[in-house]
Amino acid sequence: MHDTPSSPHVVIIGAGFGGLRAARTLRKAPVQITLLDRKNYHLFQPLLYQVATAGVSPEEIAHPVRAIFRRQKNLTFQLANVTGIDFDQRQIHSTEGSLAYDYLILAVGSESNYFGLDSVKTHGLGMKDIDEAIAIRNQVLRMFELATHETDPEIRRTLLTFVVVGGGPTGVESAGALSELIRLVLIKDYPQLNIKDVRVLLLEASDRLLTGLPEDLQEFTAQTLWKKYVEVRFGATVTDFNGERVLLKSGELIPSHTLIWAAGVRAASIVTKLDAELARQGRVIVAPTLQLPQHDRVFVIGDAAYLEDQGKPLPMVAPVAIQQAEVAAKNVISLLNEVPLKEFQYKDPGELATIGRNQAVARLGRLKFRGVFAWLVWLFVHLMQLVGFRNRLVVLINWAWDYFFYERAVRLIVPSAKWSWTPGAPPRTESEQEN
Amino acid sequence: MHDTPSSPHVVIIGAGFGGLRAARTLRKAPVQITLLDRKNYHLFQPLLYQVATAGVSPEEIAHPVRAIFRRQKNLTFQLANVTGIDFDQRQIHSTEGSLAYDYLILAVGSESNYFGLDSVKTHGLGMKDIDEAIAIRNQVLRMFELATHETDPEIRRTLLTFVVVGGGPTGVESAGALSELIRLVLIKDYPQLNIKDVRVLLLEASDRLLTGLPEDLQEFTAQTLWKKYVEVRFGATVTDFNGERVLLKSGELIPSHTLIWAAGVRAASIVTKLDAELARQGRVIVAPTLQLPQHDRVFVIGDAAYLEDQGKPLPMVAPVAIQQAEVAAKNVISLLNEVPLKEFQYKDPGELATIGRNQAVARLGRLKFRGVFAWLVWLFVHLMQLVGFRNRLVVLINWAWDYFFYERAVRLIVPSAKWSWTPGAPPRTESEQEN
Repeated sequence: MHDTPSSPHVVIIGAGFGGLRAARTLRKAPVQITLLDRKNYHLFQPLLYQVATAGVSPEEIAHPVRAIFRRQKNLTFQLANVTGIDFDQRQIHSTEGSLAYDYLILAVGSESNYFGLDSVKTHGLGMKDIDEAIAIRNQVLRMFELATHETDPEIRRTLLTFVVVGGGPTGVESAGALSELIRLVLIKDYPQLNIKDVRVLLLEASDRLLTGLPEDLQEFTAQTLWKKYVEVRFGATVTDFNGERVLLKSGELIPSHTLIWAAGVRAASIVTKLDAELARQGRVIVAPTLQLPQHDRVFVIGDAAYLEDQGKPLPMVAPVAIQQAEVAAKNVISLLNEVPLKEFQYKDPGELATIGRNQAVARLGRLKFRGVFAWLVWLFVHLMQLVGFRNRLVVLINWAWDYFFYERAVRLIVPSAKWSWTPGAPPRTESEQEN
Repeated sequence: MHDTPSSPHVVIIGAGFGGLRAARTLRKAPVQITLLDRKNYHLFQPLLYQVATAGVSPEEIAHPVRAIFRRQKNLTFQLANVTGIDFDQRQIHSTEGSLAYDYLILAVGSESNYFGLDSVKTHGLGMKDIDEAIAIRNQVLRMFELATHETDPEIRRTLLTFVVVGGGPTGVESAGALSELIRLVLIKDYPQLNIKDVRVLLLEASDRLLTGLPEDLQEFTAQTLWKKYVEVRFGATVTDFNGERVLLKSGELIPSHTLIWAAGVRAASIVTKLDAELARQGRVIVAPTLQLPQHDRVFVIGDAAYLEDQGKPLPMVAPVAIQQAEVAAKNVISLLNEVPLKEFQYKDPGELATIGRNQAVARLGRLKFRGVFAWLVWLFVHLMQLVGFRNRLVVLINWAWDYFFYERAVRLIVPSAKWSWTPGAPPRTESEQEN
């Protein structure tokens, strides 16, 4: 596969933000790169919640990896699921066979963390990939369809209760977007429905939302969500969900068929199969150079890597992955040139979250914004980060449509791998059939 | 559910071209309408082949039914799967319960006809709905991924052989679009691939393509496809497909993992459960007024209805369904007013098929077109018929992108209900796991 077997072979696992940036950074390096991913596309995760709430279609936030790297001659893409890595033999084992590497950059990202709550994992809906986001869209729309011909008011209110768990950016953005989807769009689709039957809850175990933001913006976020009729509940810890009701630690029962889980992530489970020491959230402990302590040709970056900054673990966010990718890629070149490696130093660009129409919160360096200006910043930053001009244009059209016509384009119930409902099936989510 | 129980209740089953038009025609009639469909969206079937060939995303050719009828106050939509109809009791049985009607318009459409070829049904890929189109897209892209690291040239050529069966519009358009997808777009994604390993075959059992068109346009179509490197094969009847090779009646074996079935349709299978006489292709025999002979309050329209025009059965195409919908809807009103019913008379608007870039064939009334002008007509007609201005705009952007940049936007392999491949699985299609 490699025309110049003499040049060193760098394997990058994962085509997320980190993997893409590492590959690009090595664009002109005298190396052969193989990029592996189990999907053939790069997913723009920050907009996944908009797929779940029918704002954009999944194709608009995904971009084929081969298209991204078409012009990068020193890179080969391989669609494969990595099953194990032999650090001593420098071999990667995958569903498509084995692959030798000279240098390895692991950018495998994260997955939903259910903290051992099997019932939530079985009956709840995560939001880490396209099929999960479509499953949420299907489930929400299906509940409205069922509610239209449900005569028992208690059952109807249960159908129309939607529980989002987790007060981080994904939870906040999902709850806000879901409430607006219902109150601005679906209300017109289902005229026979009483909006007072609808509940959207955001459950947060601590007493704060968006912990990466200053306290006044946290407050503003909670208040804005509340004004959008999201029941923001603090100190609410989910302990069980059977597909029909959510049980909290306090003993409170919330009748609902829909639980969206955004309460935590952990490193992708492949890292548990590696000969490497793991820290909190299953993250791989790395040296400040991002190397594995025992294997200096192996770099781990992004959500899967554990490194502390001023005594605290680095957050599992895209800017960390992107900055680490650059350092890791340059350190590979330094190893080649036998010069000293660079240590990673995080430059925090800030944090952004949208709460709904015209409402967002933003911290950029030491500046704070909220309201319309923060919302415009959010729109601009996200649109510019999308891969591909066509995607940007189409997403912009959808956003404009939504904004001016109070219309969500993509409220379709389509068959999906994670959610195989057929008419007549019971209202609870059916992901347990797939597991 | 009905505010005015005194007004007659018209039930329309099916939200395809026929069902939508019937519902719209009854917009101002003094009736209550219930529109039933097992999907919550109207699908623009003529562009489904573009979903299969990665040109547009499914969300762009589907439109939520509730959005279409939001302003039509005398209509209620219900998402339900009809399981049977009792004509004597005037009751519809569905997965969501029973529903009484005063008048019934059956617009249930058609499904793939495998003519008893179970092996083709199991291993082949139909193209009647979104999940089937996505399954085709997944399968084609997956074959290219597998071929990139296949060292055995025979196995590689088998992976890269794509068989389309059926020389009607769907088969012609699919084969043309598939060949262009491969030769103009995928060739750039897979630079290590030899295009000479690729075969796209179009198998037609008779000796003609597009039988609804004049003979010179049929010839032009075959020649144009051939120039696009589609192996057009006449007199080729498929008798078996095991997921690894296609067997023809002649005994010829074509090694391939991909068979796209566009060789025929028949009325949706729900009609076999009705107390009604069926003709060829399982279509329900109707009177010229489109009523069931024994049940004058029941109308059948579109693909599911059998009616002859000048001694020949009406074609199973959208214009027939749309024109019949108007007659059936008006005949319902005539029954209400106790005036004589109208007999259906088909006005053939012509036929259109695109063969690829700048190439199409068109018959409009007695006029014939081919080449660039026919292609522009095809573009215009299809764009204008799409429901929703946003969909039109987004499809137009995708088409322009494709046209100017030789780029298909949506070449993603995504999990789907019909095609649940995981890396490492064998190359044959896996729809049999779902059946």
